[in-house]
Amino acid sequence: MKKVVVIGGGTGVFTVLTGLKEYEDVRLSAVVSMADDGGSTGLLREEFGTLPPGDIRRALVALSGSNREILSKLFNYRFEKNSSLQGHNVGNILLTALEKITGSFPDAIAEAVKILNVRGRVIPVTLSQAKLVAELEDGTKIHGETNIDIPKHDGKKKIKKISLTSEVEANPTAIKAIRQADAVILGPGDLYTSVIPNLLIPGVSEALRKTKATIIYNVNIMTKFGETNDFAASNFLCVIEEYLGKGVIDYIAINIEKPSGRLLEKYKEENVEFVVDDLKEEENTPNIIRGKFLRHGKFLRHDPEKLAKELVKII
Amino acid sequence: MKKVVVIGGGTGVFTVLTGLKEYEDVRLSAVVSMADDGGSTGLLREEFGTLPPGDIRRALVALSGSNREILSKLFNYRFEKNSSLQGHNVGNILLTALEKITGSFPDAIAEAVKILNVRGRVIPVTLSQAKLVAELEDGTKIHGETNIDIPKHDGKKKIKKISLTSEVEANPTAIKAIRQADAVILGPGDLYTSVIPNLLIPGVSEALRKTKATIIYNVNIMTKFGETNDFAASNFLCVIEEYLGKGVIDYIAINIEKPSGRLLEKYKEENVEFVVDDLKEEENTPNIIRGKFLRHGKFLRHDPEKLAKELVKII
Repeated sequence: MKKVVVIGGGTGVFTVLTGLKEYEDVRLSAVVSMADDGGSTGLLREEFGTLPPGDIRRALVALSGSNREILSKLFNYRFEKNSSLQGHNVGNILLTALEKITGSFPDAIAEAVKILNVRGRVIPVTLSQAKLVAELEDGTKIHGETNIDIPKHDGKKKIKKISLTSEVEANPTAIKAIRQADAVILGPGDLYTSVIPNLLIPGVSEALRKTKATIIYNVNIMTKFGETNDFAASNFLCVIEEYLGKGVIDYIAINIEKPSGRLLEKYKEENVEFVVDDLKEEENTPNIIRGKFLRHGKFLRHDPEKLAKELVKII
Repeated sequence: MKKVVVIGGGTGVFTVLTGLKEYEDVRLSAVVSMADDGGSTGLLREEFGTLPPGDIRRALVALSGSNREILSKLFNYRFEKNSSLQGHNVGNILLTALEKITGSFPDAIAEAVKILNVRGRVIPVTLSQAKLVAELEDGTKIHGETNIDIPKHDGKKKIKKISLTSEVEANPTAIKAIRQADAVILGPGDLYTSVIPNLLIPGVSEALRKTKATIIYNVNIMTKFGETNDFAASNFLCVIEEYLGKGVIDYIAINIEKPSGRLLEKYKEENVEFVVDDLKEEENTPNIIRGKFLRHGKFLRHDPEKLAKELVKII
């Protein structure tokens, strides 16, 4: 049984977990970013003083037992924006209520794990309220994950540095999971708002440097406007290594299947582009896994099955 | 195995179901009023066009499997009023989302039954939107269950008649359950807003008149301001028989344990009084079950266990 830790936030973690949970000899733990402050999650966080449920919810649903389809649907159901439920997501509401009932976020997750018959563990990277701040190349500071995610500036300025506004502590369970893992998978996911926020938590990068686990980084398929404009694969790696240190990542997985021209044009309208593979294997650089990871659909994302198939070869 | 149908709404149904579910030879079906339009239920009903979930939720929780305590707590959890969740109840939110996901209210209930491991059936008396209208003795009309429940007039005027604002159809499952029952239990519960609304649905009173089941009516412990001011037990029975017909009720159960003077005084401040037992057994009147049904606590309600113990003797 291989112990695999998946680190990230947003839909990236969902993709990796969904793919890997089909392998019976893999024991999954998701370590999830707690920096989300937008939408339903942000509102609940602000109003109830609870931890952000959104990314935890996605990980729980990804790992939920196959006989619980209706519960997964329920956890993901979102009410209309123009209602008293303000676009809230049912799973977020449930996690918030469970945190209020049980008195702690880990207990709330533990109850949700039972309800959803989750196979694996879902671990918030920290149990403290963590808020992001991004410093742009011109010195401007942007506060909050959502404001970085959906830039209010022209979106062309580069992010120089990302950090947390307050000192937070790592969740010891997350550190322990990383230390004891056979493999750790970072990303895919928004570089500055889903992946790196985990590395900012004191102790997490250190644990990744010290663990004997094989560390794999999944480069995104597309760039993200305001975060990773014009980034090639090497730029993603370079930023990750800035926070994690060089030589820590053992493998880098990159999609080499180019999407159709029509889809690429549609994405280009929103200043989003295909991430070019400019990786070279040199001394002290990660091994490169090139594969056709593209999911065929409306959105340009990783295909869970195709990605997992390559990942298990290394794990 | 005795087939028992419990008819009502609000906390009364909850009490009877909670007490009777401990008896293994009783197969319970709750037929629940669909007239609720207040609070969380009312808001969801208005905004999402769904059926009112509140009373269904209470019945589901009453019958939920004993190993699902956290789910029962979750279903009953209510958010603060001054939040974006506006005092919504989690169970109501879940039922509304399930109705949207499955496309029908019965399917939503069926899914909730599975989630909560419910033992028994929960049947909405109608699948149509039913709104109540009360006519007072001075001819004034009050629209909506909540406005009748919490009177805006001085509360001293008597209700002359209660009816539905539109033609609705009975849920065939409810009719079938009544016809096939060994016993039917009406109330306790608010006379005009929880019990009688069921009898207004075309076909329900007729089914009660035709069924071979033993029909038992539980008189309330206390009067309700604006609905049953100064009512003695015989007044409750009289109103029920006005809608149901004479000679249909086989048994009437009345609490004869008087609450403490201190509690009675507190209730009196809110114009609520102890229901006096003025029942007499005559020809063509129900058999009287007198018992000490009082729950010892802050609220003057039936004790589920004590009530059930007497009810099973007749069933």
